[in-house]
Amino acid sequence: MLSISLKSTGIKNQQRAPHQLIHRDKYMIIIKAGGGRGINWEGICQDLVEILEKDRVILVHGANARRDEIASKLAVPTKTVTSPSGISSVYTDKTAMEVFLMTYAGLVNKSIVAMLHNYGINAVGLSGVDGKLWEAKPKKDILIKEGNRVKVLKGNLTGRVERINTDLISLLVDNGYLPVICPPAISHENEILNTDNDWAVAVMAEALEIKRIISLFEAPGLLSDPDDEKSLVTHIEKARIDDYLTFARKRMKKKVLGAKRALDAGVETIYWGDGRRKNPIKALLAGEGTVIS
Amino acid sequence: MLSISLKSTGIKNQQRAPHQLIHRDKYMIIIKAGGGRGINWEGICQDLVEILEKDRVILVHGANARRDEIASKLAVPTKTVTSPSGISSVYTDKTAMEVFLMTYAGLVNKSIVAMLHNYGINAVGLSGVDGKLWEAKPKKDILIKEGNRVKVLKGNLTGRVERINTDLISLLVDNGYLPVICPPAISHENEILNTDNDWAVAVMAEALEIKRIISLFEAPGLLSDPDDEKSLVTHIEKARIDDYLTFARKRMKKKVLGAKRALDAGVETIYWGDGRRKNPIKALLAGEGTVIS
Repeated sequence: MLSISLKSTGIKNQQRAPHQLIHRDKYMIIIKAGGGRGINWEGICQDLVEILEKDRVILVHGANARRDEIASKLAVPTKTVTSPSGISSVYTDKTAMEVFLMTYAGLVNKSIVAMLHNYGINAVGLSGVDGKLWEAKPKKDILIKEGNRVKVLKGNLTGRVERINTDLISLLVDNGYLPVICPPAISHENEILNTDNDWAVAVMAEALEIKRIISLFEAPGLLSDPDDEKSLVTHIEKARIDDYLTFARKRMKKKVLGAKRALDAGVETIYWGDGRRKNPIKALLAGEGTVIS
Repeated sequence: MLSISLKSTGIKNQQRAPHQLIHRDKYMIIIKAGGGRGINWEGICQDLVEILEKDRVILVHGANARRDEIASKLAVPTKTVTSPSGISSVYTDKTAMEVFLMTYAGLVNKSIVAMLHNYGINAVGLSGVDGKLWEAKPKKDILIKEGNRVKVLKGNLTGRVERINTDLISLLVDNGYLPVICPPAISHENEILNTDNDWAVAVMAEALEIKRIISLFEAPGLLSDPDDEKSLVTHIEKARIDDYLTFARKRMKKKVLGAKRALDAGVETIYWGDGRRKNPIKALLAGEGTVIS
């Protein structure tokens, strides 16, 4: 589908009683879906119905496509900056943060939550701000590269997640709710901060002793040639993740860094794969993507 | 203050441990604040710090000012319609619902949550969609009055709250979280619906056996002359609430209907008062507003 629809899908609601989702002895998985327009959310919901019979899940999502669209319509287009080491990120001033809150925590989060309810999944949407779920250290002044010059950019409302409110997540999961989490995060001093989702997922995995992370985006997995969807890297050995930092480009660089952080924190398997296809989660678990283990 | 600021207030964060807010034997209060630009949110937070020492609280908020502002900027201005009986309401089509989600559940809800954390209050923001917190019956085709003609308006994404997920509210409150709730609601068929906040508050009060409702807006209370802020009605006898339907105008008409519904449901005292002033909640509890009892 092209966007998250607010319409009912017509699928009969089979609300499951909360107790049916409670299985304290089960493993917990983090499933992260990117914020691209092409992500097949109906397919994710369908797969989740099955996954939730065996596993406890935390869902994390992005919303960059809708964010960029709304930012443009409001005549405050999203600004991207590049670090001296070549990692690109969004510059978030006060206005950009307002658009961020609107699209991530409002529009997209609640649309996903409603869609999950339509599949009988008792979802609760939260941002990293709620209950200080994602507590981050601000990183206001950043070094950026413009052409061949490096300069300091001030006032960036961004930070890196350091602490997780695991009590709130456990409270919801143990009572049959599926937490649907998105950035922004909140600083130790209670400022709202943009943050890298992949890093936050890694910190969350560590705090909750999670062994498996599934990450869905708009590509078949890690590509050795970003312009060739057939150049899929099917397996990455844990110990060799650093090698992939060199050829991962743009947003994939952050995914590699996040994966490295997650592996360091004890995660055993990370699945990267295509969120656009039919049954995206099941396909990925069946090995159709990049498996890091 | 003129708007909800995303900035830190500089007040030292004194995060209280969740257990300090747990008092199962205490009464629960619903505090509702309107979505006008003039609402003194810092004052509400300050008062809440004290109130939470004695009472358990559910906070409900609007966001109409920011909604209308963003809708205008996006060139999809908010449309208002009037029922044959003279009650005005917002017409919510798919686009208006997107703006609604962005401003209520995103921008304003999370800004309030972050501000509360800055006062050491462990807030969690939720919309009526999350966990089907506010389940509503759709009312898609509505009768509206245009001049002297009555016509049917179709496709309105609105409904009336009928069922509350009291388990989710209790789960959060009993574990030391302050729920910060806003519309939209979700239908039995999982469509996202705009809904009247005052009615939802009344249904929530009934479901949770709440005895006191505090409602803050941009007026000193109910005015016998809407154009004269000195014409405050200081007390309304429960049994005479119907009389006030006749002279309440515009948005106040809905407040009277909501109050009537709440009183029918067993609420003992409703406080209406000025959300713009210093210490808005304390002033209201001290009798400076309209008390319905």
